[in-house]
Amino acid sequence: AGEQWLEDRAWPENTVGRLMERPNAVFLAGTRIREAVESLREAVKKTLITYLYVVDADDRLVGVVAFRELLYANADDTLADVMVPTPFFLHPETDLIDAMHDVVTRHYPVYPVCDDANRLIGVVRGSVLFEQQTFEISAQAGSMVGVEKEERTATPWLRALKFRHPWLQLNLFTAFVAAGVVGAFQDTINRIVLLAVFIPVLSGQCSNTGCQALAVTLRGMTLGEVRAGQAFALMGKEAILGFANGALTGLLAAAGMYAMAVAQQHGNPLALAVITFLAMTCSCAISGVAGACVPLALKRLGADPATASSIFLTTATDVVSMSLFLGLAAWWIV
Amino acid sequence: AGEQWLEDRAWPENTVGRLMERPNAVFLAGTRIREAVESLREAVKKTLITYLYVVDADDRLVGVVAFRELLYANADDTLADVMVPTPFFLHPETDLIDAMHDVVTRHYPVYPVCDDANRLIGVVRGSVLFEQQTFEISAQAGSMVGVEKEERTATPWLRALKFRHPWLQLNLFTAFVAAGVVGAFQDTINRIVLLAVFIPVLSGQCSNTGCQALAVTLRGMTLGEVRAGQAFALMGKEAILGFANGALTGLLAAAGMYAMAVAQQHGNPLALAVITFLAMTCSCAISGVAGACVPLALKRLGADPATASSIFLTTATDVVSMSLFLGLAAWWIV
Repeated sequence: AGEQWLEDRAWPENTVGRLMERPNAVFLAGTRIREAVESLREAVKKTLITYLYVVDADDRLVGVVAFRELLYANADDTLADVMVPTPFFLHPETDLIDAMHDVVTRHYPVYPVCDDANRLIGVVRGSVLFEQQTFEISAQAGSMVGVEKEERTATPWLRALKFRHPWLQLNLFTAFVAAGVVGAFQDTINRIVLLAVFIPVLSGQCSNTGCQALAVTLRGMTLGEVRAGQAFALMGKEAILGFANGALTGLLAAAGMYAMAVAQQHGNPLALAVITFLAMTCSCAISGVAGACVPLALKRLGADPATASSIFLTTATDVVSMSLFLGLAAWWIV
Repeated sequence: AGEQWLEDRAWPENTVGRLMERPNAVFLAGTRIREAVESLREAVKKTLITYLYVVDADDRLVGVVAFRELLYANADDTLADVMVPTPFFLHPETDLIDAMHDVVTRHYPVYPVCDDANRLIGVVRGSVLFEQQTFEISAQAGSMVGVEKEERTATPWLRALKFRHPWLQLNLFTAFVAAGVVGAFQDTINRIVLLAVFIPVLSGQCSNTGCQALAVTLRGMTLGEVRAGQAFALMGKEAILGFANGALTGLLAAAGMYAMAVAQQHGNPLALAVITFLAMTCSCAISGVAGACVPLALKRLGADPATASSIFLTTATDVVSMSLFLGLAAWWIV
């Protein structure tokens, strides 16, 4: 097991190679059923053998045989007579996510793994693949806000602090960028303090709208639904959705702004309401596009598409929404 | 298949019962190996039979037999002689999440499903269970911000709008609550407009700190790591983590506040810095606790622990952080 472990380590993290076990029932195609059955009589008592793998003289995988077939076969036939020929197999360097897409419609308990020359080099249990997959996917929501997938509920707090803190510093840095935008409009806020009241509303709406687009895109990528060349279609759809959602919530937010401005006897309540509506609609549309864009861009850059995606996204949505909202107010009213 | 489909529908959504198939190789314990093998000779050519299920006269599951065992058994023995007795089985009403915890360490391709009287009523393929599971878990990040798990990247935009919009209206409503807090301190902001600049910083930090705690707790629940009675321990850990993360980022934020206050020749830069530090530290600690609390509370209330959790959480973190920050400033300086 130690040696096998070392061999597995040679494959990159999150690849099929890392989960491989040694195949334990490999036979040449010309082997008689009788011989194959006899040679496994002791082995089946000690190890879990699910399939017999059939190879040619060069170790290339040519077929797979289940015990069910052996049971009903003529003992003098060869494995070649009963095997499922040219069976499905995985490559060791395949990403777990991609491997999952390949196997999700097959229901095999064990998958053979072959190298580029089709030589059988290992097997991977389907449940190990899915177990690992569950572990990876369940880490995504955390990954978006800067939680490492190594962190579990049982992780000691000091170690968790080390994992999470760098991302919070990044988040602080990006929050300063958003603060810079508000800072640039201090004069405007000084004259219309009501604008400050709507900063959390706008920020919260855009961030949630963007995160919906982010989550849908990320899930599509995880489930293998996002094909190359689809990026613009996805971004277009999120733009429409963000626009519609922004306009509908913007109407209510504008009504709220109008009511507060009237109550506080502000000089131009209608202008404030229109600014709120416009800022909400446009910012949400841009937030939707940004939400679809961030994971696609992260993947394009060779990074994990989920990592810190929410941190990058909320910076973008904050900067855009604050600039639009305060900029419009500065230009129109103040 | 139609009839089977109807039967499956009788079980609640997201339960094992919904994924059941009819068991296709069921035998009485006294059946001779020879008879069992013969009776399946034709069936194995048509359907995928992985295990033989052995029941007693009352249909109660008493054992499971693999073809491997049949191959090496004495043909005159009975299934009772070679079966794995008292096998593991699932209950039809078990939640998929709970079922996954039960099967994750087993590597069976098919699991028997029995009713409360141990009667065999169906089988569930392991890969169907895990496929469904992958689908469910990959929906969590979206669920947190109000995306239904039915929504995929290919969902038309109008349908996606119907799915997402109600949650954005909820988010708007909760954002108004946070805005109400800021509104209550308009006089304070009017006197120290620099406070408005730090609203996005504080809001962003607390929301991200809280979401980290939320994601870790939710994942722990998904992977079955969170046991009953652990809630307070988890909340305590997140309080410490939030406090430490808040203090460390709070120092930097306070330094930023100090620098800006000095640059703008504010009367009391030190007080503003201390207020920023205190608000950041305490709000992040409370956000951490809230992050752990929200999914546990949602589950306790019988809801899905992920649903809209981020929306509820950010409302809480916004209200707490704004109240602390602006309240401290109003009390101390203004």
